[in-house]
Amino acid sequence: MEENGEKRWNFWGMGKLNPQSKTSIRGLLMKIWGSVNKDDPRPLLPLGHGDPSPFPCFRTTPLAEDAVVDALRSAKFNSYPPTSGLQPARSAIADYLSRDLPYTLSPDDVFLTIGCIQAIEVTLRALARPGANVLLPRPCFPFYDSFASSINLEVRYFDLNPEKGWEVDIESVEALTDENTVAMVIINPGNPCGSVYTHQHLKEIAEAARKLGILVVTDEVYHHLTFGPNPFVPMGVFGSIVPVITLGSISKRWLVPGWRLGWLVISDPNGILRKSGIVECITDCLNMTSDPPTFIQGAVPQILEKTGEDFFSKTIDILREVAHICYERIQEIPCITCPNKPEGSMFVMAKLNLSLLKDINDDLDFCLKLAKEESVVVLPGVAVGLKNWLRITFAVEPSALEDGFGRMKAFCERHAKKQ
Amino acid sequence: MEENGEKRWNFWGMGKLNPQSKTSIRGLLMKIWGSVNKDDPRPLLPLGHGDPSPFPCFRTTPLAEDAVVDALRSAKFNSYPPTSGLQPARSAIADYLSRDLPYTLSPDDVFLTIGCIQAIEVTLRALARPGANVLLPRPCFPFYDSFASSINLEVRYFDLNPEKGWEVDIESVEALTDENTVAMVIINPGNPCGSVYTHQHLKEIAEAARKLGILVVTDEVYHHLTFGPNPFVPMGVFGSIVPVITLGSISKRWLVPGWRLGWLVISDPNGILRKSGIVECITDCLNMTSDPPTFIQGAVPQILEKTGEDFFSKTIDILREVAHICYERIQEIPCITCPNKPEGSMFVMAKLNLSLLKDINDDLDFCLKLAKEESVVVLPGVAVGLKNWLRITFAVEPSALEDGFGRMKAFCERHAKKQ
Ligand SMILES: Cc1ncc(COP(=O)(O)O)c(C=O)c1O
Ligand SMILES: Cc1ncc(COP(=O)(O)O)c(C=O)c1O
Repeated sequence: MEENGEKRWNFWGMGKLNPQSKTSIRGLLMKIWGSVNKDDPRPLLPLGHGDPSPFPCFRTTPLAEDAVVDALRSAKFNSYPPTSGLQPARSAIADYLSRDLPYTLSPDDVFLTIGCIQAIEVTLRALARPGANVLLPRPCFPFYDSFASSINLEVRYFDLNPEKGWEVDIESVEALTDENTVAMVIINPGNPCGSVYTHQHLKEIAEAARKLGILVVTDEVYHHLTFGPNPFVPMGVFGSIVPVITLGSISKRWLVPGWRLGWLVISDPNGILRKSGIVECITDCLNMTSDPPTFIQGAVPQILEKTGEDFFSKTIDILREVAHICYERIQEIPCITCPNKPEGSMFVMAKLNLSLLKDINDDLDFCLKLAKEESVVVLPGVAVGLKNWLRITFAVEPSALEDGFGRMKAFCERHAKKQ
Repeated sequence: MEENGEKRWNFWGMGKLNPQSKTSIRGLLMKIWGSVNKDDPRPLLPLGHGDPSPFPCFRTTPLAEDAVVDALRSAKFNSYPPTSGLQPARSAIADYLSRDLPYTLSPDDVFLTIGCIQAIEVTLRALARPGANVLLPRPCFPFYDSFASSINLEVRYFDLNPEKGWEVDIESVEALTDENTVAMVIINPGNPCGSVYTHQHLKEIAEAARKLGILVVTDEVYHHLTFGPNPFVPMGVFGSIVPVITLGSISKRWLVPGWRLGWLVISDPNGILRKSGIVECITDCLNMTSDPPTFIQGAVPQILEKTGEDFFSKTIDILREVAHICYERIQEIPCITCPNKPEGSMFVMAKLNLSLLKDINDDLDFCLKLAKEESVVVLPGVAVGLKNWLRITFAVEPSALEDGFGRMKAFCERHAKKQ
């Protein structure tokens, strides 16, 4: 670094660590929030990110809070946790996930992580041998791409088909795979699409992956958040066809993304991931990073075993209602169309028809102007890999969603081309 | 990966991600714990790692527990936190650290991390431009080396001088530095040495670093845990001589390592780290990783502002007592010597004189046999870069420490060469 023409300091920043981070969700949303007009007396409506927890109707169960308080008050969980997590927590997660599987997971298959985010980090790091590549869906939760780039792991995109419920285009997966392809990622229930895959489709994915010799990483952070015709089926059901790494957390189902408790699970009854050394790499990565707080780990058995169905079904009922409102209101706005009614997660993808708008350049421009004029924040599709689409979060209080769509409609009418 | 002679799967583990991880503290301690005789009816005495929290005399203050419970119960902290941490927590940490500085930190100088471990990760990552190297002390907390290797950041070691209170050998720092050297790391109060640097010595370090054009990373995770003649002086005091990055956490001073709340602080009143782009790199790294749980962040202002001096001084009194016991008992064992009475942190380095022992090959062999025969765990010096030394933790219940040294003495007598 130069100072007054003289070299003075040896250190300098490399600028952005990777170009992808420019389109990170956090980064883009900050920019869009920044364009909101501070003088607008109306409340800001955050339909851009997946965090319903501030809304009273999406408050977590008191049982989960009690479990954390009890663990903390016991003073038994102030110490460092073991690398892979506390044994009772691992055991509880193994039991919890085994309920939906045709085989039984062992606590040794379970690794605790700091939210599903750290589970993604560790998985990609463990897979990233030199020259390797991984296949990601398009559209995708962009953290996969950002993190992979930061560790020089090549990514390749296969398409999800909006005409077919955002199913994986298996032919495009086959066309992308070579001998350096180690894994494909699926996100089910889907972010950003709100899709829920059928048993049949998941089986097809498993069989394709087996044929190609790649493992399946399944991001099930939205597990059990489904409210359409398809029930949630974990990819691990097909673990004897192809080795599966299952990523999840309590963030979404328990409505506590701020608690940062997640897991990485080896859903592989044939032990292929152990034999291939992937499990050892995972442990090695976990050895070299921070852990979820011990007392939150201590609360996991209570949280997973004791939460009542009534709490879950209340959440699902509200999500079904808001997903319906969202889908209906989109129909009333000519310049946006939604190919599929959302059936799971907290999001839907809607396509912008720019030819009906007079002064909007693209999806980002749409979102910036919408935020400025109406104090409504939605995510431009470019953030998830689909330019000129929008990702809309419906997991908000129903009245806020109605209000948001009212404002979006007014915005679109104001910017519509005259016929 | 081959299966029945046929190539079947494209993925395989790279084995250990880096060779250093073989000497990670966690890895080595697991091995040593593994050699403990399960039939020994005596309690296992853990003098190998720095976690006093399981001992009743080292229980955290109820005030800290209350602060976390209140934050959790408020339901205001269930959402994702912002990337750099909640503003009130950043502000509280800035105020707390500014008490010991000749200038005032701003909340923008503070970044919340998942323990001091994540602060180390983020710092090294932000500094790791291609070709860069960092200087580490020998002996050192080994996570620095392991993590740097995992991101291909070169490390070089300067010596700490046991004859001079483990002070930095400034000449050896100068000899190691070239135009690719970006930073030097110091740990004060010291792990593994139990040293506490004087105001004068810290100033010398700052001046040397300024001359060399490198920044100082100061690991102050043991801040204020001092009980000898030298008071704790933060390196940030010299932030106008040289830019300083201060790493810390509540883990040690509040005796809650399992809570995983730490910080990375820019102690740089001249704004050099901002101008050089290092701060932007730090933010970028934090954007791409998980965060400390929001409700723990929410408790930080209460914890930092309200904890009474009586809690801190009680901890210091016990540490002074156990450090004294430790030093005295070492004098009674001929084959180990301790060049300096520990004055801070929770550890001391003691040198093994193998020539007085008949059947011990090296420090690791000593530790394995000690664990096996006496159920006492201490860390071999090789883990911290000094072969044939031992790192002994004294931060345990006084009676456990007496017991541990009694057993260690018996062990050494049994293995002593006959005169
Ligand atoms: C698909 C997907 N995976 C992972 C995550 C991160 O989950 P967590 O909050 O548990 O870290 C998210 C968060 O929105 C997500 O949408
Ligand atoms: C020197 C040093 N730095 C950092 C750490 C990690 O601190 P934390 O528990 O806050 O992550 C330790 C833990 O023992 C340590 O000794």
